[in-house]
Amino acid sequence: LLPISLGLFQGALLLFFALFVTYDKPSAQAEDASLMAIQLYGIFPFFQDIQVMLVVGLGLLLTFLPHYGLSALTHNFLLFNFSTQWALVLQGLLHHFHHGQVYLDLHNLLTAEFAAVTVLISVGAILGRTSPCQLLVVAACEVPVYLASEWAINTHLGVLDVGGTITIHVFSCYFGLGVSKALFGAAQQPVHPKETPRHHSDLMSLVGTLILWVFWPSFVAVLCQPGDAQHRAILNTFLAMSTSAVTTVVASSLLESDSKLSPGHLQNGSLAGGVVIGVVADMAMPPVAALALGSLSAVVCVLGFKFLTPLLVRKLALRDQCGIHNLHGLPGILGAIASAAVVLAASKDISGSHFSQVQALCQVVGLAVAIGGSLVTGLLTGAALRLPCLARPPERLCFDDSMYFKIQDQAESPGPGDTAEEGALALKE
Amino acid sequence: LLPISLGLFQGALLLFFALFVTYDKPSAQAEDASLMAIQLYGIFPFFQDIQVMLVVGLGLLLTFLPHYGLSALTHNFLLFNFSTQWALVLQGLLHHFHHGQVYLDLHNLLTAEFAAVTVLISVGAILGRTSPCQLLVVAACEVPVYLASEWAINTHLGVLDVGGTITIHVFSCYFGLGVSKALFGAAQQPVHPKETPRHHSDLMSLVGTLILWVFWPSFVAVLCQPGDAQHRAILNTFLAMSTSAVTTVVASSLLESDSKLSPGHLQNGSLAGGVVIGVVADMAMPPVAALALGSLSAVVCVLGFKFLTPLLVRKLALRDQCGIHNLHGLPGILGAIASAAVVLAASKDISGSHFSQVQALCQVVGLAVAIGGSLVTGLLTGAALRLPCLARPPERLCFDDSMYFKIQDQAESPGPGDTAEEGALALKE
Amino acid sequence: LLPISLGLFQGALLLFFALFVTYDKPSAQAEDASLMAIQLYGIFPFFQDIQVMLVVGLGLLLTFLPHYGLSALTHNFLLFNFSTQWALVLQGLLHHFHHGQVYLDLHNLLTAEFAAVTVLISVGAILGRTSPCQLLVVAACEVPVYLASEWAINTHLGVLDVGGTITIHVFSCYFGLGVSKALFGAAQQPVHPKETPRHHSDLMSLVGTLILWVFWPSFVAVLCQPGDAQHRAILNTFLAMSTSAVTTVVASSLLESDSKLSPGHLQNGSLAGGVVIGVVADMAMPPVAALALGSLSAVVCVLGFKFLTPLLVRKLALRDQCGIHNLHGLPGILGAIASAAVVLAASKDISGSHFSQVQALCQVVGLAVAIGGSLVTGLLTGAALRLPCLARPPERLCFDDSMYFKIQDQAESPGPGDTAEEGALALKE
Repeated sequence: LLPISLGLFQGALLLFFALFVTYDKPSAQAEDASLMAIQLYGIFPFFQDIQVMLVVGLGLLLTFLPHYGLSALTHNFLLFNFSTQWALVLQGLLHHFHHGQVYLDLHNLLTAEFAAVTVLISVGAILGRTSPCQLLVVAACEVPVYLASEWAINTHLGVLDVGGTITIHVFSCYFGLGVSKALFGAAQQPVHPKETPRHHSDLMSLVGTLILWVFWPSFVAVLCQPGDAQHRAILNTFLAMSTSAVTTVVASSLLESDSKLSPGHLQNGSLAGGVVIGVVADMAMPPVAALALGSLSAVVCVLGFKFLTPLLVRKLALRDQCGIHNLHGLPGILGAIASAAVVLAASKDISGSHFSQVQALCQVVGLAVAIGGSLVTGLLTGAALRLPCLARPPERLCFDDSMYFKIQDQAESPGPGDTAEEGALALKE
Repeated sequence: LLPISLGLFQGALLLFFALFVTYDKPSAQAEDASLMAIQLYGIFPFFQDIQVMLVVGLGLLLTFLPHYGLSALTHNFLLFNFSTQWALVLQGLLHHFHHGQVYLDLHNLLTAEFAAVTVLISVGAILGRTSPCQLLVVAACEVPVYLASEWAINTHLGVLDVGGTITIHVFSCYFGLGVSKALFGAAQQPVHPKETPRHHSDLMSLVGTLILWVFWPSFVAVLCQPGDAQHRAILNTFLAMSTSAVTTVVASSLLESDSKLSPGHLQNGSLAGGVVIGVVADMAMPPVAALALGSLSAVVCVLGFKFLTPLLVRKLALRDQCGIHNLHGLPGILGAIASAAVVLAASKDISGSHFSQVQALCQVVGLAVAIGGSLVTGLLTGAALRLPCLARPPERLCFDDSMYFKIQDQAESPGPGDTAEEGALALKE
Repeated sequence: LLPISLGLFQGALLLFFALFVTYDKPSAQAEDASLMAIQLYGIFPFFQDIQVMLVVGLGLLLTFLPHYGLSALTHNFLLFNFSTQWALVLQGLLHHFHHGQVYLDLHNLLTAEFAAVTVLISVGAILGRTSPCQLLVVAACEVPVYLASEWAINTHLGVLDVGGTITIHVFSCYFGLGVSKALFGAAQQPVHPKETPRHHSDLMSLVGTLILWVFWPSFVAVLCQPGDAQHRAILNTFLAMSTSAVTTVVASSLLESDSKLSPGHLQNGSLAGGVVIGVVADMAMPPVAALALGSLSAVVCVLGFKFLTPLLVRKLALRDQCGIHNLHGLPGILGAIASAAVVLAASKDISGSHFSQVQALCQVVGLAVAIGGSLVTGLLTGAALRLPCLARPPERLCFDDSMYFKIQDQAESPGPGDTAEEGALALKE
């Protein structure tokens, strides 16, 4: 089923591009060409940084499951490409109905990649227990919902959210949780033996975190107004992520026994500052606000891992494999509320306080729309994933690359760490 | 032999630079300085991306041999540096005879690195069964042949090939196959026990693929005309690589039993789009052409791995360790033919159809020159590699880092995965 | 102790930022905004490259200890953030006393990160045998000393050192050696069983080296005068690092038995060219000087590992876990002396020979100040680290992640390589 549906989609993509999409006419004047070159140099390094984040950084972050590294990297890579292509088609269709010919440029591509990000985040909730077919269905459903939600929140409501805190992080988190809830139902399940990270997989995952951490300022700042606002967004993002890294160490040491750090806290908490800052990164606020938000988001994230995730498992049987609620949901809500506060605070300085109150309300309404819309559509998507034709893997084959990869030496395939047990078992027999 | 010859080369390099090479005089006027700064900002991020590709990405891609990771990374790194230096010397000599003083700048360095790329690709055919001395001989022979071939194809024939599809990928592929054929002769050999990728080495190699995938647009677009052409080249490369990634999954699933993916297909097929697009990236063609070429190249690459490589082994005893024929040869030929078609198609729009037909012919002749020239010189180089003084490693020591590295704990050196067997063996004894 | 002191520091940071730090007012005129955007595009890619080096590259380089990878990455990351924040506070305080309000921009942040680099280098001498508390004390002491030393050397003495060879590399090396000497005292200790690199950890560390190698030109050139000088600094750095990579292979092969390479030599020697070139990168010198310095620095580095480090261990009981003396100390001194020679040589071309002699003297005096100041303050800092409250780990628990990380499966935690022995042991029992 997977190759056939993917193949059909590639065909549809070609057809759509052949009919509707073209490049803009080259500008005739030399002056325009030089200006265009400078504009390209202004966006291209940001674009490359974001690609590294999504393809390499996020992929590595997901390799914390010791026998599922190839699948995590590959599914992330496949979903990134499929979702970006699908978003290009949908964006193009919308544009086509309004303006005719669709012109492709780096800016369109970037907004399509932003749509793909939501898919990459959402599937974190169901990582390891789903087939590639199911993941593609998630992408197929989530991208149009995201585009509608992004239009409603940004264009219709006028919510300010340059780094996608509300439209990307909060939205994709609750969409993913909805999918997980509807897909796995209410049954409590024991911990799978291959679900536990190991030393070498925690190390790979931490490298992914560091790559995401380093390039995050590009993600937040790429769509900012060039000049001051972009400069400020870069600095705010750095400050927030820097305090969230340090605060994660503090919070994790205080919460764990023997003051030891949890690798999972570190892998996620260090990035919470990037989630929280997106919505306020280019607003007029002093640097201390970025520091405080970064610190607070790390606390919220670590507390979420320690207390909220186990609670949700017990009360709601809600599975969240990567802890996306702690990294994207809670810090995202925090950021949205902070943005309302920043907008209100800014009103005291300048005139137009009524306008500010409306804008602050908008930020909160936008948050509610993102949560509500994503939860409902996520639940519906998750219900669709239960279709038997989508080939959900049986529990005992979950979290294992050999389910999806032809690994030549099957005996050794599950990873280097297992060989000892197997060697020992082989000897006993 | 290795340290002495490398040491002598370093001495010769210093002598050459001392005699002939200098930096350009700094521009006196402030306006020029500002312009120069902007030019530097236009090329430097591309340059860094390409360096990451060649040193980190390609190096990691080659670590799929589980016990040969250190050697693969190091030989790649050494060859990159040696070949770049050697290309700088040869380029400088050529320039010196025509213009006297040689001025070094980032652009020269970039073209020298392009010469180095051909070496890095070619040695993929003989990875693991060759000594560093042999690899240096390959580099010493291939760089001048590449410079001559590049001059013949680009300057003399006027072939359009901004991303090096013909001059770099096709050339280096057939050069490498020629070397492999002449070096290993006609003897069929059984599969070496250390030749099979393992889970952890496949994972590292896939990370290398992803790094190459992300930065490939910079490789194709760096030498484009700034402005529109460069913008289009970036977009075309992204589109081609995106469909080649998705199509690889489709093709590999359809061909392998149980719809499982082969890691090797994924590691190579995802990049085929980057090879095929180089020669047409900045031409006037609609975006759908880039999508179609990317998709087609992935199909060709996966089919090559599945059917052509085993056939070549059986019929010609041709070894191609990394499958460079499938990643660089077949998609490169496809790209060259496509470029002729694009040139012809463009002629219908504008006048000058005669000129277009000549240009289309040039593209095909350029392809023939690249294949013919590289095969012959590759075979000669491979024959030279059989000299006994070059210390080809004995078969049983192939594919093992302990041949070239002082690994302190020899018992554990072959990699973490082996310890189980060794532990078991140790117990039996 | 660690979480409490870190938490208090985060509070102090917030307080300081709330009181004194702000962003600059946005420029009102559109022309200024466009200029500011171009300036940002000129510095931001360099900034990102440097972040990748410090957080990902340097972190991975330190993972050569096979059971200490998580700690090496995490401590490096934590120290990077803590030191940068601490440097921002100290820089801000100094600025505040002179000019009132402190304006934060990317340039300030960069100089604060340079202060953090010194800490990251210094702690290489004591890697694995120290607690996080001790590392924070090193950072707390070293950052102010560095700022004073940098002021004395660059501003007061007028030493030219655009890439930080003297102010960063030499300074941090001798500071770290001082700390190590004072902390570990005169007792000779046997080699710890977990101190020896393994195949998989050497591979990870080599990837770190390659990342540092690729991005080093950005580190050296970021603070150069835009235009020619920056262009030249990039080229000089590339040339020096390229020959140091090749020369390292030569030197290591010649020194080791059987012409085998030592992974440790390669991991460090390849980077020696980047250290040596920093101080002369933007000076008026021919390219051959960069090549020669790169080559020489690699020889010095490899000789240091082979002969000087064992000598220092025997005579002075001086421990230097990462060999920072060979990578940062010796090449740094070489660079400083070379800079004096380059300044003198330049005097023959132009007038002002007296000025040149003074400048050459300054370079040497700056070197002496860096070595002397850092050794004394390093020794004092090391003495402070002996305070019992700082929780130095007992010898048998050193070099092990399980000391600081909650690794869920303790039996398997030390890394995949160990499982064989454990499996074997388990069988025997």
